[in-house]
Amino acid sequence: MKTEFNRFFAPRSLAFLGASTDTTKWGFRILANIVTGGFQGKIYPVNPKGGEVLGLKVYSSIEEIPEAPDLAIIVVPPAGMVETIKQCVSKGIKTAVVVTAGFAEVNQSGAEVQEEIVRLARQGGLRLIGPNCFGILSPSAKLYAQMPPIFPPDGQLAVVSQSGNVGLTIARRAMALDFGCSRMISIGNEADLHAEDFLEYLAGDDKTKVILSYIEGLKDGRRFFEVAKNTSFKKPIVMIKVGETEAGASAARSHTAALSGSAEVFNGVSRQAGIVRANNLQELMNLAYGFLCHPIPKGRRVGIATLGGGWGVLAADACARLGLDVIKLPADVVSELDSFLPVWWSRNNPVDTVAGSADNITRVVDILAKSDATDAVLALGVPFPHFARMVLPTNEEEKNKFFEFIIESYCKSFGEMSAISQKYGKPVIVAAELPTLRGERAIDTDIIRSIAKRNMVCYSMPDEAAMVLNSMVKYGEFLRNG
Amino acid sequence: MKTEFNRFFAPRSLAFLGASTDTTKWGFRILANIVTGGFQGKIYPVNPKGGEVLGLKVYSSIEEIPEAPDLAIIVVPPAGMVETIKQCVSKGIKTAVVVTAGFAEVNQSGAEVQEEIVRLARQGGLRLIGPNCFGILSPSAKLYAQMPPIFPPDGQLAVVSQSGNVGLTIARRAMALDFGCSRMISIGNEADLHAEDFLEYLAGDDKTKVILSYIEGLKDGRRFFEVAKNTSFKKPIVMIKVGETEAGASAARSHTAALSGSAEVFNGVSRQAGIVRANNLQELMNLAYGFLCHPIPKGRRVGIATLGGGWGVLAADACARLGLDVIKLPADVVSELDSFLPVWWSRNNPVDTVAGSADNITRVVDILAKSDATDAVLALGVPFPHFARMVLPTNEEEKNKFFEFIIESYCKSFGEMSAISQKYGKPVIVAAELPTLRGERAIDTDIIRSIAKRNMVCYSMPDEAAMVLNSMVKYGEFLRNG
Repeated sequence: MKTEFNRFFAPRSLAFLGASTDTTKWGFRILANIVTGGFQGKIYPVNPKGGEVLGLKVYSSIEEIPEAPDLAIIVVPPAGMVETIKQCVSKGIKTAVVVTAGFAEVNQSGAEVQEEIVRLARQGGLRLIGPNCFGILSPSAKLYAQMPPIFPPDGQLAVVSQSGNVGLTIARRAMALDFGCSRMISIGNEADLHAEDFLEYLAGDDKTKVILSYIEGLKDGRRFFEVAKNTSFKKPIVMIKVGETEAGASAARSHTAALSGSAEVFNGVSRQAGIVRANNLQELMNLAYGFLCHPIPKGRRVGIATLGGGWGVLAADACARLGLDVIKLPADVVSELDSFLPVWWSRNNPVDTVAGSADNITRVVDILAKSDATDAVLALGVPFPHFARMVLPTNEEEKNKFFEFIIESYCKSFGEMSAISQKYGKPVIVAAELPTLRGERAIDTDIIRSIAKRNMVCYSMPDEAAMVLNSMVKYGEFLRNG
Repeated sequence: MKTEFNRFFAPRSLAFLGASTDTTKWGFRILANIVTGGFQGKIYPVNPKGGEVLGLKVYSSIEEIPEAPDLAIIVVPPAGMVETIKQCVSKGIKTAVVVTAGFAEVNQSGAEVQEEIVRLARQGGLRLIGPNCFGILSPSAKLYAQMPPIFPPDGQLAVVSQSGNVGLTIARRAMALDFGCSRMISIGNEADLHAEDFLEYLAGDDKTKVILSYIEGLKDGRRFFEVAKNTSFKKPIVMIKVGETEAGASAARSHTAALSGSAEVFNGVSRQAGIVRANNLQELMNLAYGFLCHPIPKGRRVGIATLGGGWGVLAADACARLGLDVIKLPADVVSELDSFLPVWWSRNNPVDTVAGSADNITRVVDILAKSDATDAVLALGVPFPHFARMVLPTNEEEKNKFFEFIIESYCKSFGEMSAISQKYGKPVIVAAELPTLRGERAIDTDIIRSIAKRNMVCYSMPDEAAMVLNSMVKYGEFLRNG
């Protein structure tokens, strides 16, 4: 199994079946992405016409390739698929990604061809991803065998998606924050290999810390949940399950021939398997960053520190609604806070620094994290430097220096929060507003990227931080109680 | 009433009571914002010490000011507030914003001082905003009398917020997209003027198209809902109500002395008043853009066009879950789509363009919008140009030209969607992925700003578009059925 999957994710050579010189075709575009991505192994494009593409010799048949390549990427039209699979088998190829669509998701005759392909492949010892998929990514192997020209860096997020475009949405969002991917697999119709096969592989994959998954329906629910439960004990699986409504289920059927099944059953079983559920893509991304950057909380007792009253109320509401315990502050915490907060502070949780010095929030977070009464802290805001200057310099060089100063200051503030988290072994989850300088550089993006490089994340809204914390708490409960 | 409020939002002159030369104090910072914001009327800073600040003469008393200014901004400490209010009254000032905190939100004696202030003000014909607030904004009058140094441009969004920091979060988000504000009022403790007084004013304010509101609790629920209902018939009120949990309600009490009341009662009455509710700040912003940019739909029947299958399933699920009607496609629509979509397209709603030409989506949207069977269309994706080049130019000038080309292409695509919306009088709501070029300019931000200038919005996730459409549908039902 492991070796088989290494052929997918770290192939020494690949055949590209259906290569084209027509730049509008997938047979060109995907190959171009493989080349642009910098794949280091041998690439064997195949097309009956022969010739050359992107500086590579095109082989006129699979047979002609001088070795049995580790991996085949297949984009030939549906009509030629059975023959292509036969040739792969007889060449001794063991792993293939079938990108081509037009099988079980289209109609009954497509389903029959798909069955035939799987039969031939299994008989010949060939494992398949797809058909009807976007391809796969494995940045550590510089393998970017997918449709759109995007190249996420190497990272710790794995993506197992029944939808290629959703998988790539995930990769793009992660990239925008300079987080990378370990593997991305667009599993398509799952004719041979299923979602659970990849969960099983990723559970033991050192490069992967968090598994993200988009699922329309399961081929083998029993095995899926068995594997998912074993995997969840090793690393979190964060999942979107769609098709819970009739409209969504019907769309899923025509998309990947998926049968969505009962939402109630799915929800119950996935809870037992420790799967972390996301209601939408933004939640999925927020959870991914949370699990990447924070330790798992040991309980649901939360202290909240805030630079602004309204954000505090929003966070308290969001936490309580989710079932987190917004604790009453113990006397020792109150008295320690009394020593430096303005006399009129509320003695309440959230602890509002009441428009005093912004640096106070770091002290408040430290005191809340230190207390035995909390399992986690939400920090709504970090110390910020931009009051230091009311008016921007006009000189280009000075302006850039000023921007660098702001970015560095934020990195320092986030670093302090992260240090507190490490000191007490509790998550300190930050939601904060970052300076957006209109008409100037998008400095908020620069800040977010700079802190992401240090494995830290800034949520943009208080309820996002609460949602992430709650899901991490539940995952912690699964780890402790099974 | 109208004249009174014009004194707040278009004053010819203002007194700034509690001016300071200490750059760490609000008595300096707020004044600096007023000056930086470019206020054109007379500014009279007042401080017993006299002297000069920011190039302005400081008057040693209110009495000394050579006229009765239209507006007083008050930041003097709580202890001096009663005396200050008396002096404002005897000077003949009619409107004041009390920024100072430390009243009803702190303790009983604070509450008593607050009552005394209101009694004196009302007796003397002086109307008050606050106390315990961040100030007010009125960009058309270049009035930026608020704590943080942000300067949203003139726009059509009004904000009525019990939290200053939430109000400013809203202003900042809008600014990031180049949308502006008409007015922003941080209403604080609402000692004299209440949220409903501002709703009443904004209902008749030509500069305001959409009213956004953050509410912790109401002072006079009966009048609030009466005014809100009348206002809703003129323009939408989009609201976050917090304090629905015990933790949130407790935080709200110590924040603005607000009593949150029963969530059930509030929900029921606000539905009757046509108030559009948002569950969190991101929803509030998404709804704001929706009401700014789209016509109100006449019903809940939705057609969905998508460039990618997974996004289609996500949108169908989100729409159906909210109660929108994801229609079965009528025969005439199917046959018109048959004429140009690939033969294997699903004949389903969502209409998936099946990885064909990206330009197809505009045709699909047109056909869906034209049909009598729909009231609105979701477009998941727009025609995009970036396949035109696989590799970025390295030359700086060429690269910038290429970026401009991409931005212009997206503006054109969004313009086509907007034209379809206008042609059929139905909302065409777009959610799309925009190109994020890693390590390069944040071109997605540039695109979003460029289309916002043309009064168009791009949601980043399919469920966001569904949520906005659903709330616009419900508001339309309120307008038709009361």
